Amino acid sequence: MKRDRPACYKLIVAYDGTRYGGWQLQPSADTIQARLEAPLERICGEPVRTQGAGRTDAGVHARGQVVSFTSNKRVPPAVLLRALNAHLPEDIRVMRAARAKKGFHARFSAKEKEYRYQIVTAPVMDPFVRNVALHHPRPLRAQAMRTLAARLVGKLDFAALSANPRRKVESTVRTVTHLSVRRFAHGMTIVVRADGFLYKMVRGVVGALLKVGRGEATVEEVVAYVQGCRRTHFIETAPACGLSLWKVSY
Amino acid sequence: MKRDRPACYKLIVAYDGTRYGGWQLQPSADTIQARLEAPLERICGEPVRTQGAGRTDAGVHARGQVVSFTSNKRVPPAVLLRALNAHLPEDIRVMRAARAKKGFHARFSAKEKEYRYQIVTAPVMDPFVRNVALHHPRPLRAQAMRTLAARLVGKLDFAALSANPRRKVESTVRTVTHLSVRRFAHGMTIVVRADGFLYKMVRGVVGALLKVGRGEATVEEVVAYVQGCRRTHFIETAPACGLSLWKVSY
Repeated sequence: MKRDRPACYKLIVAYDGTRYGGWQLQPSADTIQARLEAPLERICGEPVRTQGAGRTDAGVHARGQVVSFTSNKRVPPAVLLRALNAHLPEDIRVMRAARAKKGFHARFSAKEKEYRYQIVTAPVMDPFVRNVALHHPRPLRAQAMRTLAARLVGKLDFAALSANPRRKVESTVRTVTHLSVRRFAHGMTIVVRADGFLYKMVRGVVGALLKVGRGEATVEEVVAYVQGCRRTHFIETAPACGLSLWKVSY
Repeated sequence: MKRDRPACYKLIVAYDGTRYGGWQLQPSADTIQARLEAPLERICGEPVRTQGAGRTDAGVHARGQVVSFTSNKRVPPAVLLRALNAHLPEDIRVMRAARAKKGFHARFSAKEKEYRYQIVTAPVMDPFVRNVALHHPRPLRAQAMRTLAARLVGKLDFAALSANPRRKVESTVRTVTHLSVRRFAHGMTIVVRADGFLYKMVRGVVGALLKVGRGEATVEEVVAYVQGCRRTHFIETAPACGLSLWKVSY
């Protein structure tokens, strides 16, 4: 085994998160991070600690999760890609592997992240997207949702739309650079980009859009709630299944 | 319970066939037909025998399977739809329910059926289509496949491209009205329509297209093989996972 200066790697990982306890290592849950680190240890010949750009919750998916790690063993990226996929379950795939610059950190180096939330509004759920979309079998008022979306773009305090973080965060202000509601034949996709997200923030934003979409609150009522900066039961956190980490920009 | 002349019903059923032993009732397999007939018996208050337009094999999917049955109990179609979906697993959904004319038979009344076969040619499989597409991680020669496809359209003897039927069929001639190879970013979709299909015929046709697509045989070699009307090991039956019964016309 060749040992010289540690090498830094970057992986693009896609996963169907349905049967996992989320990204992050946990003592009693099957997580994406644990599934990746087990074969990495074998390939690199030493324990490897990975960093994920987004710490997706249980049941949340990813199309473009970015994972970084450092290893004393130099592995050609094409070999790494093949070896990892050979040992990973079919619902987790390493789509790309590359060397990264020294000091690259999937989460801390990220400039922007994009999440997408899929909703099917048809009366009967399409069985082929049952694990990756929310079934909301009633029509939603897309125009009202778009009006609210426009009000949630910018540098705002998102405390009222995120869950209590496990540890105190220094600031609950985040900059949302894009928030759109795209309609398609049998539902809609909500696309959100920000410089960072608080715990359960995307699902809080989607919950707010759904509340307005159902006609249960006006745009002004939700905006006033957000400005109150206090989490209450007014907005429900949208279910995990519809959410995917789509893309991370550096 | 209102009892009068038997009523005929037509269902449009979609299913992810991954974990099922195919459409047709079998003593020792979990099949779509068995899954549908169990709640139908409860709803109709009597045993119900269904007919499926396509007897899809184990692992084959459907977007537009048509199912017919007759019952002495009159159930409003909207009630039938809701009651069935309430009792079916999430990977089987009744998309539509309607009354049908007396004598309607999902299979015998069908004029044309459309199947689609999805292939991913990217080096790494997209985990979100892992159950509904074939992963063929090498490029395929689409132009040669299209040339062969054009030669397989029309009224032909498909004995060489189907498996030995369980019972003797009167004729192995079928009329293929459409056979196309559609490319997309990371793969292709094969669309085939015919007045009827022999046992494993779609997967035989796809196997022939793949053989030419890989450059393992020329179009003329495959055409000569088909004209021989004898099944040999020359053409492999394509795996079930990529196949879906798409649409049935009456």
